[in-house]
Amino acid sequence: MASPSLRQYSFQVFRDVPPLRQMRRQLVLDKKTVGFVPTMGALHEGHLSLIRQAAAENTDVFVSIFVNPTQFGVNEDLSSYPRTWDSDVAKLERLNDEFARLGGDTGRITAILAPTSKVMYPASPPSSEVDGDGSFVTITPISRKLEGASRPVFFRGVATVCMKLFNIVQADRAYFGQKDVQQTVVIKRMVQDFHVNTEIKIGDTVREHDGLAMSSRNVYLGNRRRSVGLVLYNALKAAENTYNSGKLARSDILDAANSVANQVLSEQQALSPSERALYEVDYISLADPDTLDEVESVDPAKGAIISGAVKMVPLEETKPGEDCGLGDGQVPVRLIDNLIFKPRA
Amino acid sequence: MASPSLRQYSFQVFRDVPPLRQMRRQLVLDKKTVGFVPTMGALHEGHLSLIRQAAAENTDVFVSIFVNPTQFGVNEDLSSYPRTWDSDVAKLERLNDEFARLGGDTGRITAILAPTSKVMYPASPPSSEVDGDGSFVTITPISRKLEGASRPVFFRGVATVCMKLFNIVQADRAYFGQKDVQQTVVIKRMVQDFHVNTEIKIGDTVREHDGLAMSSRNVYLGNRRRSVGLVLYNALKAAENTYNSGKLARSDILDAANSVANQVLSEQQALSPSERALYEVDYISLADPDTLDEVESVDPAKGAIISGAVKMVPLEETKPGEDCGLGDGQVPVRLIDNLIFKPRA
Repeated sequence: MASPSLRQYSFQVFRDVPPLRQMRRQLVLDKKTVGFVPTMGALHEGHLSLIRQAAAENTDVFVSIFVNPTQFGVNEDLSSYPRTWDSDVAKLERLNDEFARLGGDTGRITAILAPTSKVMYPASPPSSEVDGDGSFVTITPISRKLEGASRPVFFRGVATVCMKLFNIVQADRAYFGQKDVQQTVVIKRMVQDFHVNTEIKIGDTVREHDGLAMSSRNVYLGNRRRSVGLVLYNALKAAENTYNSGKLARSDILDAANSVANQVLSEQQALSPSERALYEVDYISLADPDTLDEVESVDPAKGAIISGAVKMVPLEETKPGEDCGLGDGQVPVRLIDNLIFKPRA
Repeated sequence: MASPSLRQYSFQVFRDVPPLRQMRRQLVLDKKTVGFVPTMGALHEGHLSLIRQAAAENTDVFVSIFVNPTQFGVNEDLSSYPRTWDSDVAKLERLNDEFARLGGDTGRITAILAPTSKVMYPASPPSSEVDGDGSFVTITPISRKLEGASRPVFFRGVATVCMKLFNIVQADRAYFGQKDVQQTVVIKRMVQDFHVNTEIKIGDTVREHDGLAMSSRNVYLGNRRRSVGLVLYNALKAAENTYNSGKLARSDILDAANSVANQVLSEQQALSPSERALYEVDYISLADPDTLDEVESVDPAKGAIISGAVKMVPLEETKPGEDCGLGDGQVPVRLIDNLIFKPRA
């Protein structure tokens, strides 16, 4: 990471808590409002969309950039998570230029929190073991479902770091993307149960032109896995079409999704190793929107969440000159996506 | 509990969060300071001492009264914990009278938070099972030691409810008694690790004239168990005398405490069941003041904490007219106490 102190930005960059608290306190006295967008950097259009929403609803936007070690499991991809300080800051500067052109009705990014690990985990190195010691927030049983089933420490890490960040920033509103739907459910539950004085706002999933959900990990896909990876979105859309056609039964809705996922996989398996991209479906879930309990049929008064995770395995053979993405197509990429089934009138 | 809304107090009584937040926000704008004393009611001189300290250091004192179910284990004494709303409120009113006589240099009790269980645990009934589901703050390994060894959910419950209360009150300072020394270590660690924007202040243990540490549970002792229960304090004092005489070795210091505990128990066992009060020593610990790890010898630069827990078992036989305390001497009472060995210059 380039040293934040060497340049002058249109926002203040904080690596520690006390000076940020001082700025925050003055904003309260000045009756300003703070919208907070927590990130792990590697900013893409999804993050920028949340920041735009925050700027539209608050005078001041705080963005945190911190790759949180405790939400990565012992064997997970912390080391391969993209770290892109310079381009992140450039994107934030361009957003502030954009906000300036919009004039007085829009807030500005006024603070970036880029804390060290020691600031975020002062007492002891954080544990990534399921039974590891530390100071943690746990939200169960929600955290064990779906993503939590394959990533047992993930939501403990997310809830823990968000509680710290919420306490530091004391935002009026905090913004999360719909793409990480289980994260939104866990965070909303945490805020409710612990009386965190911050309103949680959820921004729509931002997608590429063809529907692929934006994700910091997409840079590892490359062309071939990227186009096959669309299978997840297409499977969820098939399920959504089934719901929209009037069906409520779990079997009808999941069959629609699974048949897309199975068909695309068969097609790929029939190709040669230098042409195909294989994947493993981790889960496709039809769940209650509040508890994430699987449902046997959708309650039309509540709606439901259809969500899924697909692991794009490394390419078996690459071709000369092929765009295989960062890591030459050898980094496994786990894609997640979801659609909300709205209640029916 | 008498309905708080029926009377006019010198402070506001809140049973829910939003109106308290409104008052709190105005105090920030008015640049007032809030000192917070969390309690489970059954107020005694120890609590009043903390409130006096809070009033000396803040313009406004907030007191919470909430018997927190999640810090009681499945088989513990939640149902027998004393609930004494009317006398608690009367004590707080007398304190405000006292503060009024002191004049402008002392703050006032301006808010009592007496939330319902539903307010404190909105999403689901809280679990008291060790592996129970819920939204919890856990601080390990500290929480497993000492009191945590015999009360496995205790500090999870304490940390969880304190995080909620801290988020609600957003105090400048919060006050805890030295008597619950492990609680002070857990809370200070939680505040540090989660960047809670509240300074933790520890008030000295308040004792009866003979040295017995004040506790809400003392009302269950009665005369006979009360006088024998002093054994814990006397054992800790013997250890302290050993430290003050220059000794640092664990064996020397603990031998002094244990010999007091053993001697008093022998004396009691020699008496008849209608004369004696028996007890079980749960632990006597000599520990590092920050980690609560047991130490083999006291580091004179750091000092140490000597602490203990003694369970006063029910009286075997009572005599006519004997003062046996609330519950007729049949409620087991767990006494805890500690002394701080200060670093040596």
